[in-house]
Amino acid sequence: MRGTMMDVPLTVPLLADRAARYFADVEVVSRQPDRTLHRTTWGSVIGRARALAGALLNAGMRKGDRVATLMWNHAPHLETYFGAPLAGGVVHTLNLRLSPDDLSYIATHAQDRFLVVDDVLLPLLDKFRARAPFEKIIVVRHTPREAPAGCIDYESFVSSAGGRFDQPELSEQDPCGLCYTSGTTGKPKGVVYTHRSTVLHTMFVPFTDGLALRNSDTLLPVVPMFHVNAWGLPYGCALTGAKLVFPGPHLDAQNLLDLLERERVTVAAGVPTIWMGILDALEKEPGRWKLQPGLRMIVGGSAAPEALIRGFDKHGLRLIHAWGMTEMSPLGSCSWLKAGMREMPYDEQVRVRAKQGLPAGLVQVRGVDESGREVPWDGQTQGELQVRGPWVASSYTDMEGSEDRWTNDGWFKTGDVVTIDPQGYLNLTDRTKDLIKSGGEWISSVAVENALMGHPAVKEAAVVAVSHPKWVERPLAVVVLRDGARASAEELRGFLAGRVHSYWVPDAFEFIDAIPRTSTGKFLKSALREKYRDYRLPGC
Amino acid sequence: MRGTMMDVPLTVPLLADRAARYFADVEVVSRQPDRTLHRTTWGSVIGRARALAGALLNAGMRKGDRVATLMWNHAPHLETYFGAPLAGGVVHTLNLRLSPDDLSYIATHAQDRFLVVDDVLLPLLDKFRARAPFEKIIVVRHTPREAPAGCIDYESFVSSAGGRFDQPELSEQDPCGLCYTSGTTGKPKGVVYTHRSTVLHTMFVPFTDGLALRNSDTLLPVVPMFHVNAWGLPYGCALTGAKLVFPGPHLDAQNLLDLLERERVTVAAGVPTIWMGILDALEKEPGRWKLQPGLRMIVGGSAAPEALIRGFDKHGLRLIHAWGMTEMSPLGSCSWLKAGMREMPYDEQVRVRAKQGLPAGLVQVRGVDESGREVPWDGQTQGELQVRGPWVASSYTDMEGSEDRWTNDGWFKTGDVVTIDPQGYLNLTDRTKDLIKSGGEWISSVAVENALMGHPAVKEAAVVAVSHPKWVERPLAVVVLRDGARASAEELRGFLAGRVHSYWVPDAFEFIDAIPRTSTGKFLKSALREKYRDYRLPGC
Repeated sequence: MRGTMMDVPLTVPLLADRAARYFADVEVVSRQPDRTLHRTTWGSVIGRARALAGALLNAGMRKGDRVATLMWNHAPHLETYFGAPLAGGVVHTLNLRLSPDDLSYIATHAQDRFLVVDDVLLPLLDKFRARAPFEKIIVVRHTPREAPAGCIDYESFVSSAGGRFDQPELSEQDPCGLCYTSGTTGKPKGVVYTHRSTVLHTMFVPFTDGLALRNSDTLLPVVPMFHVNAWGLPYGCALTGAKLVFPGPHLDAQNLLDLLERERVTVAAGVPTIWMGILDALEKEPGRWKLQPGLRMIVGGSAAPEALIRGFDKHGLRLIHAWGMTEMSPLGSCSWLKAGMREMPYDEQVRVRAKQGLPAGLVQVRGVDESGREVPWDGQTQGELQVRGPWVASSYTDMEGSEDRWTNDGWFKTGDVVTIDPQGYLNLTDRTKDLIKSGGEWISSVAVENALMGHPAVKEAAVVAVSHPKWVERPLAVVVLRDGARASAEELRGFLAGRVHSYWVPDAFEFIDAIPRTSTGKFLKSALREKYRDYRLPGC
Repeated sequence: MRGTMMDVPLTVPLLADRAARYFADVEVVSRQPDRTLHRTTWGSVIGRARALAGALLNAGMRKGDRVATLMWNHAPHLETYFGAPLAGGVVHTLNLRLSPDDLSYIATHAQDRFLVVDDVLLPLLDKFRARAPFEKIIVVRHTPREAPAGCIDYESFVSSAGGRFDQPELSEQDPCGLCYTSGTTGKPKGVVYTHRSTVLHTMFVPFTDGLALRNSDTLLPVVPMFHVNAWGLPYGCALTGAKLVFPGPHLDAQNLLDLLERERVTVAAGVPTIWMGILDALEKEPGRWKLQPGLRMIVGGSAAPEALIRGFDKHGLRLIHAWGMTEMSPLGSCSWLKAGMREMPYDEQVRVRAKQGLPAGLVQVRGVDESGREVPWDGQTQGELQVRGPWVASSYTDMEGSEDRWTNDGWFKTGDVVTIDPQGYLNLTDRTKDLIKSGGEWISSVAVENALMGHPAVKEAAVVAVSHPKWVERPLAVVVLRDGARASAEELRGFLAGRVHSYWVPDAFEFIDAIPRTSTGKFLKSALREKYRDYRLPGC
């Protein structure tokens, strides 16, 4: 017996069609570089995306060709999100925070033929343009300056095909998007999303248990559109008909709060540091901004501190913790409370909400120990988090030697250490490379750091492994004290007792002035490991 | 450039795995034939479904083999919903309200090898068993009686494989379900759902704009599991972890209300007549049942009268109008209010909620006139509703001569007449075969009937086409007056003026005692058309 169902491929044009037919009047608002607000609609965005698709095909774009973007969050970027895939192309978002060297490497590796770029970012482009393969550079003008020589004006380009565009046939396995991971080690690696993976990922966005996006929502993606497609939320807005508000380059707390208030935003998305700044501003000027009651703030990129969840709860605003990776399109999990948990004491609820949560839709997860065995879901045993699902990468593009990121049975090794509790909630405890392997046990450096940073004298703490003749590795704590504060190693050791397992307490403490950081503000532990490579622990 | 995403097939085992891993403790409650409540959990249901799958394979089931069910709504039926597909089989739900002749035709056409049947339905089975192809009959016992000779006890069968089951590899194109349409004309026709179509359909169920199913919900499907898989809701419960409450054979208002109250149901689903009975009971005994505030009642199967929506609103209960067909898995559309509509006057809101609503997720729609042109979305122009989507049928199984239900470009012709308004809301006005084609215009028989039934003297009215020398067809109204009431043709003609287009007013009125009905209570218009085939209109 054979199925009798239609063979309708899951493609981005389905999402564009839905936005244009049912949500044509819904607004798309963009903050311009000069701070003015540009207002358009989903109907216009999709119409112009189709015109852009026609222009790309006219200009010689072939199926699978890369259309790079170097832009802030705004409507023309959204048009490119749809225009390139509609034409059968691949939208490749370049991260404007990377160095010119990285950008030229990535654009070359990706073989980007087209580039759509903000005029305000032309100075950055100039730093690597000579080393990049772009054949056509299309400039979105926000200022009165003409597009420079050798470049095409975006508006002229969009209108160049006279609005003619015939939707080409697309397979759901055709590529439609490309993002590079900005790993702290090794070369950036590219993940090529397909129309299928994009549509399936998008279908999770409206789930009531999760992000719960809907037509009556107004979404402000603070997360850049060059960062894993702004977590896929713009495509989710097309499916649901949610209003979009783009912040452009103005990402400081004041500007964001003004925009949240003015456009009556109901959902926003960004990394914890953004929300910390917002909470600070709200506390400093209580009552200044009238935000929508129940405003949901999706936080991802790194763990959501419990204090942040509590802080926003006091203002009637709700932080929703999501976790993902470039290799996961990116949504991997979301922390929402199961039935019955709303009756738990508040502190317990916050503890659950601070976890990475339950896997999204069709994503499967497991924790695996060093011997390759699945760890039990007891909320205690640590293992490497491995994932599988229709919107998870199966390889990097053109990157030999990276196959060890996948298991023999086809699961992706996230490089994160996890415990999974009996209810299925994920709790990420460390990166595998930051784990300390001591006497056959795994010590979570993150857990020890967080405990240490609970001490009033400690401003920052990083915990790294140093070698030990008997235990193989033991933890060393590197501590920055607050200005004028004092605490001895003995004092800190005593403070940790009872807060972490006794064998997790560091063997030594080093006091320094500042912990080296990555460009995105995370601790650069590889530098610390290098610095303390030959460290002699007391008694060794 | 090729995509780098995992090739994870969309299969029912993904849903089963999710229910078992994350929602194992969530209850599944079934009302037994003796009215007692049987309580189990999703964990147990999936465990037993896997054991059933192992037993089916042990018993010689091959990939694609049909496993028929003849059961009420309860946990063992749910186990079969998962057990047969997990084993690579096709669950084929037999409609226990059909005649033994139809059942034997359908079981034979489907080549059902296995049957799982309620012991309380054995008398029905006996009427067609000799004419059906079942090789193994497995009896779910609700009473102390032994399974009859030649049959296997369900519990013994489930435990026969000793719990051994290795999940076979499945393709997402493999068939997993089979339902027959119970058309009023012609033979029943079968639609074969695939794992892919089932999973994609299931992913729409948790959409916030729509049915919004979530883990904290308790769902009572009054709609039978033999009626298009209870609208796909049981699979939606597995995905979301919602609690399920099955009514068994007890579908009267009192029993349903008791169950809604007792199990704190938050979502229920059924046809309008069920909800009419419930509303009646609530009005007769105000305060007797304490229902969950905001209880959503999904209504489908036929149009939701506005009065029903208003009636439940007064009790703080919310009727949600959904539309679908066996050929659509079945969810085709759902009526929810767009942003801004909640500020409309109440009457206008109800008018929108009574429409068939906006297409579900990835479903595409169009209205097409007799010349094959798409009609405008003006809320006025009627056309046949045609649909396309990944969970829509592309043919019937083994049914030559039914190809005319699909267009040359692959859309399914629903047989419904629709207007689509500028916002995209569907409004079904008639069945194509009941339309009256008069002078090149389409007259909606349903609209004229509804207007006529607004007259205080009219109990029932059906409007059918009779032939006319000039206009090809003209409407004839067949009217049943209320006991003791009087109204002349002249009076009714005057009443319709201003209520419908002038050329929609019937040319003649016939007064009869009762309108013939189908077994499900709908007007049997084919009988009326036959009766008035040679009707001479006045002046012709």
